[in-house]
Amino acid sequence: MALAQRLSRLGTETAFAVALAAADWKSKGNEVYPFHLGDINIPTAAHIIEAMNAAIANGKTGYCPGAGIPELRAALAHDIGSRRGVTYDPAQVVVMTGGKPVITKFLQAVMDPGKGVLYPNPGFPIYESQIEYFGGNGQAYRYVPTDDGFAIDLDHLRSQITTDTVAIIYNDLQNPISAESQPAEQEAIAQIAIEHDLWVLSDEAYFEMRYEGTSTSIATLPGMAERTVILYTFSKKFAMTGSRLGCAVAPVELATVMSTMNTNDESCTTHYVQWAGIAALEGTQQPVADMLTTLKERRDVVCEMVNDTPGLSVEVPRSTFYIFPDATEAVALTGARDVTHFAEMALHETGMSFCTRRHFGRPQPGEDREYIRLAYSGINVEDIRTGMGKLQSWVGSV
Amino acid sequence: MALAQRLSRLGTETAFAVALAAADWKSKGNEVYPFHLGDINIPTAAHIIEAMNAAIANGKTGYCPGAGIPELRAALAHDIGSRRGVTYDPAQVVVMTGGKPVITKFLQAVMDPGKGVLYPNPGFPIYESQIEYFGGNGQAYRYVPTDDGFAIDLDHLRSQITTDTVAIIYNDLQNPISAESQPAEQEAIAQIAIEHDLWVLSDEAYFEMRYEGTSTSIATLPGMAERTVILYTFSKKFAMTGSRLGCAVAPVELATVMSTMNTNDESCTTHYVQWAGIAALEGTQQPVADMLTTLKERRDVVCEMVNDTPGLSVEVPRSTFYIFPDATEAVALTGARDVTHFAEMALHETGMSFCTRRHFGRPQPGEDREYIRLAYSGINVEDIRTGMGKLQSWVGSV
Repeated sequence: MALAQRLSRLGTETAFAVALAAADWKSKGNEVYPFHLGDINIPTAAHIIEAMNAAIANGKTGYCPGAGIPELRAALAHDIGSRRGVTYDPAQVVVMTGGKPVITKFLQAVMDPGKGVLYPNPGFPIYESQIEYFGGNGQAYRYVPTDDGFAIDLDHLRSQITTDTVAIIYNDLQNPISAESQPAEQEAIAQIAIEHDLWVLSDEAYFEMRYEGTSTSIATLPGMAERTVILYTFSKKFAMTGSRLGCAVAPVELATVMSTMNTNDESCTTHYVQWAGIAALEGTQQPVADMLTTLKERRDVVCEMVNDTPGLSVEVPRSTFYIFPDATEAVALTGARDVTHFAEMALHETGMSFCTRRHFGRPQPGEDREYIRLAYSGINVEDIRTGMGKLQSWVGSV
Repeated sequence: MALAQRLSRLGTETAFAVALAAADWKSKGNEVYPFHLGDINIPTAAHIIEAMNAAIANGKTGYCPGAGIPELRAALAHDIGSRRGVTYDPAQVVVMTGGKPVITKFLQAVMDPGKGVLYPNPGFPIYESQIEYFGGNGQAYRYVPTDDGFAIDLDHLRSQITTDTVAIIYNDLQNPISAESQPAEQEAIAQIAIEHDLWVLSDEAYFEMRYEGTSTSIATLPGMAERTVILYTFSKKFAMTGSRLGCAVAPVELATVMSTMNTNDESCTTHYVQWAGIAALEGTQQPVADMLTTLKERRDVVCEMVNDTPGLSVEVPRSTFYIFPDATEAVALTGARDVTHFAEMALHETGMSFCTRRHFGRPQPGEDREYIRLAYSGINVEDIRTGMGKLQSWVGSV
């Protein structure tokens, strides 16, 4: 009895390993300041939970359609469309157990083995894992630092394209680096997709997680609707990470395929949670505004303290709840062998737990700077101050 | 832009199409008697929902481990092990969004493209779909009618095995035919697995859905623990089909792989639903006993009325909530072209909605009998009497 060869190509989200190391350190009696996961320490709003219980009381505990209940598909089509200035048909919406399943189902639907898919690196590690798992060639494109954060290296991206390239994964308002496309950059990506006839996965998990400005979906640019799948999730906006609720918005042909995949893979998404999702979309949006206020305060504190730490620097992002400081000098100051060692030392010297660039795809040739990622969605301002204060003291004292 | 070639091999669960046809017929003002889906028209027990809300109030709304929360893995290891007379380590348990994901994740883990997997036919249609979708060769094995239901045709099963066969899917207490292995049959399957060094997926979705006798898991036979993955689900026993909660119990190496698949595919199973699962396992079992009493009453009524219908006959099964009557004579009596036409006619003539043998895998060479499947999990005794009465009148009058 052997295991299948495809398993040798299966990656993972190594941030969870950081979470385990932090839990282990904490279990030994140490204080830990959790900056490692994009989880949210804010409760799901009461009216959302109430709607879920009303659905249960109303008998919504059996199976439902693989593509989702019609009422939620309609609510999602309306909400996602109206916030992007376009009209979607509910038939384009496929409800899923979170945003993540959209990645694997998109790739299974459009990528044959041996084909190439462009993906951001550093980027969400599951892109790379799933492209390779299903036999594709991951074609990593990179970012360059600017005075205002990061920009996609478009020349480098174009240089990765081959005749086998079939798709691009584009994550505006990006995890882990919080990069945000200027209009010209987004238009350039769209132009490349059209020129090379590519499918586009637009990961819009953080579309509404922003503190200033407005988001634009690449799906709304000319020529893009018929080639773009939007990844939408309730996880971040509504503090529902553990509820596992999201959807794909796709051309109908692709939506139909992804619905059949749902029927094969898990029958449907938890029935009563879908009714909670309708309440999230259609009920009061005050909890969303309150959460963004809270997150903005955290962002301001953590960015200021990072920039006051010897050897760390970061531009203040306008969106997401991640920052991606350049830690090259701090790594050198502390005598760490590399950024992985730096993170380990930081945990044991200060209790600060965070991921590094190494958790977001394989490093690319020519990288000469080291970065860490701090997620501030799961830690209060007071703990941010204490943890960052300890980091400042440690790096400043070595 | 093309779609991936693998999609041409993706099947589906066509029972959902029957559900849609029934809903369409009902929307036109007709009475429908739903025997088509294995869904349950009994509420999830109150203490299970209460535990879920307690978990939400206790902040269990964020991410949790891909393999499931430790408390549920421990509860499942204890419950599943003790009911089978063996001991499982929680590390062997991987929580999933229902039982169905165990099928695709098992196949992905053990089956390379071109390899063969034995599967029951008629049987749950997702077996065939997923084997072929991931590039394997589905090796269908069949059943033969006996005086006591159905038995696996072991000679035929052995004749399907090739040097490429790597696994067998075994569904004792079978959907759709309610076949139940006698000890000798189960031992023969185990012997075949050992002799040919096969992985075994033991689909035990209906292990505790029985009205008399006791179930035995093939995983507990000598030499089987190290090669068997148990599919477990909360769906049937606890009337939680819409909650999407189940697990795999597997050798640790396979459990680890399936946990990584979870991290890639959907991060985790809905967090607070896992706490509901603990309450289901550890709380009062009275609702389970009550449901079995209700289902047994339905079984007795539907079996008696089937055997009183011209051209239909069935042995009374001791488990599951399906019956699989031989309808060969009824098809002939009604002048239907085939069993598919018979089911369409029955819907329009009587409102009786049910699946047929054709919904459970491609018919095999040499089949000369026609069967229908009646699920009695989603219909009350009174409606069973009315619907079956109309079927009797229609078939008796043509």
